[in-house]
Amino acid sequence: MQAAYFQGHETFQVSDCVPVEPADGQVQIRVEFCGICGTDLHLFHGAMAHRLTLPHVMGHEMSGAIAAVGAGVGDWKPGDRVTVRPLDPCGACPACAAGHRHICHNLKFIGIDRPGALQGLWTVPAHTLHRLPDGLGMRQGAMVEPIAVACHDVRLSEVAAGETAVVIGGGPIGILIALVARARGASVLLAEVNEFRVKLARGLGIDAVNPLAADLVALVNQRTGGAGADVVFEVSGSQPGAEMMTRLPRTRGRIVVVAIYGEAPKVDLFRFFWRELKLAGARVYEPEDFEKAIELAASGALPLERLITDVVPLDRLADGMRRMERGGDCMKILVSL
Amino acid sequence: MQAAYFQGHETFQVSDCVPVEPADGQVQIRVEFCGICGTDLHLFHGAMAHRLTLPHVMGHEMSGAIAAVGAGVGDWKPGDRVTVRPLDPCGACPACAAGHRHICHNLKFIGIDRPGALQGLWTVPAHTLHRLPDGLGMRQGAMVEPIAVACHDVRLSEVAAGETAVVIGGGPIGILIALVARARGASVLLAEVNEFRVKLARGLGIDAVNPLAADLVALVNQRTGGAGADVVFEVSGSQPGAEMMTRLPRTRGRIVVVAIYGEAPKVDLFRFFWRELKLAGARVYEPEDFEKAIELAASGALPLERLITDVVPLDRLADGMRRMERGGDCMKILVSL
Repeated sequence: MQAAYFQGHETFQVSDCVPVEPADGQVQIRVEFCGICGTDLHLFHGAMAHRLTLPHVMGHEMSGAIAAVGAGVGDWKPGDRVTVRPLDPCGACPACAAGHRHICHNLKFIGIDRPGALQGLWTVPAHTLHRLPDGLGMRQGAMVEPIAVACHDVRLSEVAAGETAVVIGGGPIGILIALVARARGASVLLAEVNEFRVKLARGLGIDAVNPLAADLVALVNQRTGGAGADVVFEVSGSQPGAEMMTRLPRTRGRIVVVAIYGEAPKVDLFRFFWRELKLAGARVYEPEDFEKAIELAASGALPLERLITDVVPLDRLADGMRRMERGGDCMKILVSL
Repeated sequence: MQAAYFQGHETFQVSDCVPVEPADGQVQIRVEFCGICGTDLHLFHGAMAHRLTLPHVMGHEMSGAIAAVGAGVGDWKPGDRVTVRPLDPCGACPACAAGHRHICHNLKFIGIDRPGALQGLWTVPAHTLHRLPDGLGMRQGAMVEPIAVACHDVRLSEVAAGETAVVIGGGPIGILIALVARARGASVLLAEVNEFRVKLARGLGIDAVNPLAADLVALVNQRTGGAGADVVFEVSGSQPGAEMMTRLPRTRGRIVVVAIYGEAPKVDLFRFFWRELKLAGARVYEPEDFEKAIELAASGALPLERLITDVVPLDRLADGMRRMERGGDCMKILVSL
């Protein structure tokens, strides 16, 4: 049973896992798979260092089975197949009081502010658990967390069947948003500048274009009779994405900002005025998004296996990070524990 | 009966009005008062020149009485006291088809794209008319259009009684938004950098602060128990305003962009993600906003006379423009015709 201890300076030490006995209200999970998220790559590169206690265990997209339960955990027993919603809200701040616990002012994100899932035995609060149905494999189970992100984004967009949605950015989250929006009956166009990702998306039946090679605004207008898109998801986190997001929507169209911007981009607020556009930021997920994600994953409606381009053992975690860093020819990389 | 003909180059020629006989579906109005809008000042300075046919008659905030009606205008008769909703939508574009005629893709704004109200006799489509109740004076009637802007902005904000709203920018529209939001029961704070306007707002009972002299973020957090404002109206059109608008709202708080930005400011999209903020652009008004504005104006709930800092005759229109240009010590300037 091993764990990957991040030492800072783009270095992991993979060594024996030091299990933590589950306390009251906690469970200990035998982790099977853990996906590498873009956020983990940012941590690897030194971002958010002030939030980490080194050596730090990353990882928050996982599947596993309960190994042990602490006192007062009545709903769970060893052997239960689970995934974790890695949020630990304070319960006392104005956001929690207003029912927005997923955007708690003092939110602890498990895998950043607390030890994460890249360890054989992982101890977490029982309130974070979601059950994986028997029909859902452990590899797919490790995809539930990013699918829940997409479910949250699509839910906040209020996209309806028959509406036109454009997703700007075709990494794992952008592709999952496209798939979840399509599952809701929307007509989806994905814009992505990386040709590997464009081809992968097309292979999943997603209508994908490279906006460097095609006039995206003209294309959307042509497909919508000059109206513009009903919904735009900005998932690129880039200045060109921030510009494109205001050029595509119809009057009173909706923009959902999913991307995490490192610095403030220029945004065409005149266009918000002119077309009475709406924008909503979307962050992580609420419990219902996890339930929806599990339902979708278990239904087989999402081609999850084709999004998993690599599975690496824990002692090759750094290689996985390097592969993501190069970009270009991978999508979701899972780590097997 | 005179008219002010804009010649370009910051020059008006005030000379005899050339009345236009009302055609089918049109009415001719004897204009009594017409407010000078910031947009008129922009036209005076040469903005939007491509939309004007010189000599051009500006003006779109007016009151008057019907002088003559064209054929097919059954609902109106000479003598009826009216104001005009100065929008002429095409009726055929995707925005009109979706019921958003006020943000028609081909909208003609009367007073810019068509001759405006700074003329003794003004001919407009009858569909633009709203009736002024007997109890509402003609000076106040000329304020209905900017009040309708405020009613539209406040309606789109969905601000509710008991909520906290911050208005960034205390010109005529900002102050009217503060008054309309207060009339809905919101707790309103107005931020304005011009001390004349701060004092004028305070004289109206509005809680106003100068954000150059006070820590606005700390003040809002202190008043809301650390939560942040429910609603922020960005009416300044400035980069500091665009920055402040994302720092004030609570989690899932709403921002309404009312200001017309000449260039794209930097906007903290990370904050939208972090607090799941919402933003909506708001442009002009819909018929119900005019009706609400007339109701509010007639109720006496708004201190309109104290917003009218100057009334000038038509042949002193250019002086009025110069006075607005200097800023500082005026609020709403009316022209008497």
